[in-house]
Amino acid sequence: MSTKAFAAQSATSPLAPASITRREPLPTDVQIDILYCGVCHSDLHQARDEWHNYAPTTFPCVPGHEIVGRVTKVGTRVTKFKVGDFAAVGCMVDSCQSCPNCAKRLEQYCHQFPTFTYNSPDKHSGSHTLGGYSEQIVVDEAFTLKVSDKANLAATAPLLCAGITTYSPMRHWKVGPGKKVGIVGLGGLGHMGVKFAKALGAQVVLFTTSPGKVADGKRLGAHEVVVSSDPNAMTPHLHSFDFILDCVSAEHDLNSYLALLKLDGTLCLVGAPEKPLPVAAFSLLLPRKSLAGSGIGGIAETQEMLDFCDQHGIVSDIELIPIQKINEAYSRLLKGDVKYRFVIDMASLKSGG
Amino acid sequence: MSTKAFAAQSATSPLAPASITRREPLPTDVQIDILYCGVCHSDLHQARDEWHNYAPTTFPCVPGHEIVGRVTKVGTRVTKFKVGDFAAVGCMVDSCQSCPNCAKRLEQYCHQFPTFTYNSPDKHSGSHTLGGYSEQIVVDEAFTLKVSDKANLAATAPLLCAGITTYSPMRHWKVGPGKKVGIVGLGGLGHMGVKFAKALGAQVVLFTTSPGKVADGKRLGAHEVVVSSDPNAMTPHLHSFDFILDCVSAEHDLNSYLALLKLDGTLCLVGAPEKPLPVAAFSLLLPRKSLAGSGIGGIAETQEMLDFCDQHGIVSDIELIPIQKINEAYSRLLKGDVKYRFVIDMASLKSGG
Repeated sequence: MSTKAFAAQSATSPLAPASITRREPLPTDVQIDILYCGVCHSDLHQARDEWHNYAPTTFPCVPGHEIVGRVTKVGTRVTKFKVGDFAAVGCMVDSCQSCPNCAKRLEQYCHQFPTFTYNSPDKHSGSHTLGGYSEQIVVDEAFTLKVSDKANLAATAPLLCAGITTYSPMRHWKVGPGKKVGIVGLGGLGHMGVKFAKALGAQVVLFTTSPGKVADGKRLGAHEVVVSSDPNAMTPHLHSFDFILDCVSAEHDLNSYLALLKLDGTLCLVGAPEKPLPVAAFSLLLPRKSLAGSGIGGIAETQEMLDFCDQHGIVSDIELIPIQKINEAYSRLLKGDVKYRFVIDMASLKSGG
Repeated sequence: MSTKAFAAQSATSPLAPASITRREPLPTDVQIDILYCGVCHSDLHQARDEWHNYAPTTFPCVPGHEIVGRVTKVGTRVTKFKVGDFAAVGCMVDSCQSCPNCAKRLEQYCHQFPTFTYNSPDKHSGSHTLGGYSEQIVVDEAFTLKVSDKANLAATAPLLCAGITTYSPMRHWKVGPGKKVGIVGLGGLGHMGVKFAKALGAQVVLFTTSPGKVADGKRLGAHEVVVSSDPNAMTPHLHSFDFILDCVSAEHDLNSYLALLKLDGTLCLVGAPEKPLPVAAFSLLLPRKSLAGSGIGGIAETQEMLDFCDQHGIVSDIELIPIQKINEAYSRLLKGDVKYRFVIDMASLKSGG
């Protein structure tokens, strides 16, 4: 079926209207009418082929992996969804489902790589996957999430990437009461990190380079906000953190944050700066510390996160935009000018050109 | 009491004979006649002030923290030792003994820093501590280790640093049967790493840049030896390791080893290269992995390690030298020309100039 979308035709061309094809639902597929799609920094990286060395972009590229919509058709063997249900799709639409990591329900770490929602080889079409900046998407129900009827759908969309990306490492490293937790960077990921760390019961310290974000950091739930460019503000926190979630995708100094960890503390990267970051061995040795990375989360954990958000009234702070403003939104994203996630109102695509 | 020693008087002067003073044993002190002292790469770094930014050297510098000897005097309240016993001293001679990390018996991570065996402020002398390249040392019994009567004393000396530095992270990250463990670098630390990983029951793969070390790696216990400069030899090991112990203190590429880790695997640094090493976020993200560091081990764990070595017949492979050859030994150390640890026969100091 032919579907309207917004696509980049090359690394240097802006996103523009395009027509793409979605498959007819297979027996275990769900067809979703996309209502909202969040705008992730990865969308921009991928559309501009900025991860060329790690994940080169195949064009045309239709980004978007924070998808919320309504089920419009279900395959003959679908059991979790019926037409009219709300549904969500995150960063993955398939995986081998047989390797040890898939068996652990960590499909994001599939040995054969998961099929990402965009820019992955698509075993159905023979081409590559196309994401959520589009009217419709067809996804196996095993990779489709349930969304509460009561949810604020637009503000739920960013949970599918920004949410799970910050929730999963906090669960893995056991963020909770009695733990001192740092969040580095107040953007799309960071503002979700603050909300989750607070809801999980930790003592939350937000690090930002922007003095103008201090008040907002506290509003979002941080017990303390440290302006990280001020060494005097950092010093009192030396050797005191159990866990720090680093949500910055620009180049920055990791060693100054490693210095804040206590024995057996972990600094976990969820942003993906283009260039390698220098790490001093001494930053990790005395005392024993870890620098880790974490990528999104498994499907079961994503559902757990959505349910957690439903229980705790957590959504993303968003700015709703029509899809015609996506290129302007990318420019503003690069300047950090968004509080804290753009979400595309897909009605604009249906009604627009 | 006045004691013969070998000291560096500046960062650029060779080690040469010197006379130093040791305190009379206090009530909980043990006075040890040093029989053997291992030569650690840290000795060279410190004597030449190569860690200036992290741990600047105070001169004169008497290195040496792999000390084995015989007890010649004990304080009035000493209970663990009597005159004539064999005893050992490692990298630390004191700590605050009251902070949370000392309470966990991880004195090496003391919040106020442990008193290292050399180049630390010495609360008794008011000056700085002086290490094992000397005839005698006086140490609190709480920081003195028991050595078996049956031990090969010279080959036991390197266990006090090279041994515990590799043993402690293997215990922390649960190296044992069913685990695939890599050791990077076959030197003083690496050869102990191979022996411990084997004795702990792991599948052991040694990585070396030297094709000439393959046979020796197998002799020491590695099930497989990979020449790491050959990418074709590395590829079959991608995403397969539970734990890799990186024993290299020169600059090298961490990302190629991070790529060998499986989900939740850890690459642990125990060498301390002078310059920060570049780490790509993507090396840690998919799947979730950690880069960690570990520094020596606590006193209780050091005793556990010595007892483990006694049970398993583990000692270091050494080349015994007279102290008059220490500067030549440093030159050879820089060329990697030692299998695998120089140990000073301290009889040469007593009899020599």
